[in-house]
Amino acid sequence: MIELVALDADDTLWHNEPQYTTTREQFCELVATYEPSAALDARLDAAEMRNLEHFGYGVKGFVLSMIETAIEVTSGRIQARDISTIVGWGKEMLASPVEVLDGVRETVEGLAGSYPLILLTKGDLLHQETKLARSGLGPLFKGIEVVSEKDARAYGAVMSRYAVAPERFVMVGNSLRSDILPVIEAGGHAIYVPYHTSWVHEEVSDDALEGAHFDRIAHIRELPAALARLSALTR
Amino acid sequence: MIELVALDADDTLWHNEPQYTTTREQFCELVATYEPSAALDARLDAAEMRNLEHFGYGVKGFVLSMIETAIEVTSGRIQARDISTIVGWGKEMLASPVEVLDGVRETVEGLAGSYPLILLTKGDLLHQETKLARSGLGPLFKGIEVVSEKDARAYGAVMSRYAVAPERFVMVGNSLRSDILPVIEAGGHAIYVPYHTSWVHEEVSDDALEGAHFDRIAHIRELPAALARLSALTR
Repeated sequence: MIELVALDADDTLWHNEPQYTTTREQFCELVATYEPSAALDARLDAAEMRNLEHFGYGVKGFVLSMIETAIEVTSGRIQARDISTIVGWGKEMLASPVEVLDGVRETVEGLAGSYPLILLTKGDLLHQETKLARSGLGPLFKGIEVVSEKDARAYGAVMSRYAVAPERFVMVGNSLRSDILPVIEAGGHAIYVPYHTSWVHEEVSDDALEGAHFDRIAHIRELPAALARLSALTR
Repeated sequence: MIELVALDADDTLWHNEPQYTTTREQFCELVATYEPSAALDARLDAAEMRNLEHFGYGVKGFVLSMIETAIEVTSGRIQARDISTIVGWGKEMLASPVEVLDGVRETVEGLAGSYPLILLTKGDLLHQETKLARSGLGPLFKGIEVVSEKDARAYGAVMSRYAVAPERFVMVGNSLRSDILPVIEAGGHAIYVPYHTSWVHEEVSDDALEGAHFDRIAHIRELPAALARLSALTR
């Protein structure tokens, strides 16, 4: 029996990555006016990875990495008004409406009658709470867990907090790296719902997937059936 | 009987505000080289308040507010290398060691044998977790709760999560606005341990305090005695 179903938020319940992609494109265009031939995308990636330890996930750290990259790449020639534009993009990202993915609302409403659901996400606490409120899905969840990193330890802590044995816990999400592999490592079940694009940081090698057992569904609408199968297997 | 003791983190367990104060002073000095007569401190305060809704509490939002203020006040004349300096201050703040306040370690070690303790703080999730790890106090706490705002609703949610009745819950902290008044509103007990300085945002008017019943101690070392008195009263 499944006693707790945890759902990832960004790119599982609502669109997220396209907003980052669009902002990255605007960033590259802006900085290219100073340095046309710089490998801007790669430089920004590197800054984000380098800063992750201190800034963590989320829009504010992304904005600071963009500012840092812009200054580095232009050797300090970038004008303050352009840095102001970058800060403005961050504010827009934080203020933007939440676009719930197709099929999510009906599916989550249906599931909430059958399973206790929690939202389990990483990133910025305030922004994730704000997005959940904007989505209107909040009342369907029995709890919201925002963690600083989705690793096996964090999943173990959530299972303990809800007093659920790993074999009765299911995580559903679009990131193999964050939603699937560490859950399996923690002894839980995982259902993978791919999103059409993902941040390079969330990608994993084929090697890492070897021997990992999890379900993969093409669309969130297939989730009730996948959970029913899993429930039957673990009964 | 007291069943759960929640301790605030910044300026209750370890020094925090002086780091912001020092950075604000550096900021004012830096920007004064462009605009000697600007009311920089007030401008920065205003930016922080305005941005709180989207950035929330913590170092990253503070850095973004400094950058925004510096650009505004200098009408875009600030050089990128100076903005880089501001970002660098933020990184230093995030990486800096944690200075546990005098008496905290012994007191919290002593209390952990008598009461279940949790850390209850607002701000940036990753940074608060990092500071707790650096403090070495982590193992003394049964839970860590980082919330986006310390209001009565948030305190109610924590009480529910730990299945503690409000009258058996005590919050200990240095902010009347965040650690004391909303706890009383939620039906809990509060013990105020003032710190020598506080952020203007955390100050409350005398009116707001009228009729609020809480204990005030001069030093964290007085906490065990204050808790014992409270336990006796609520038995």
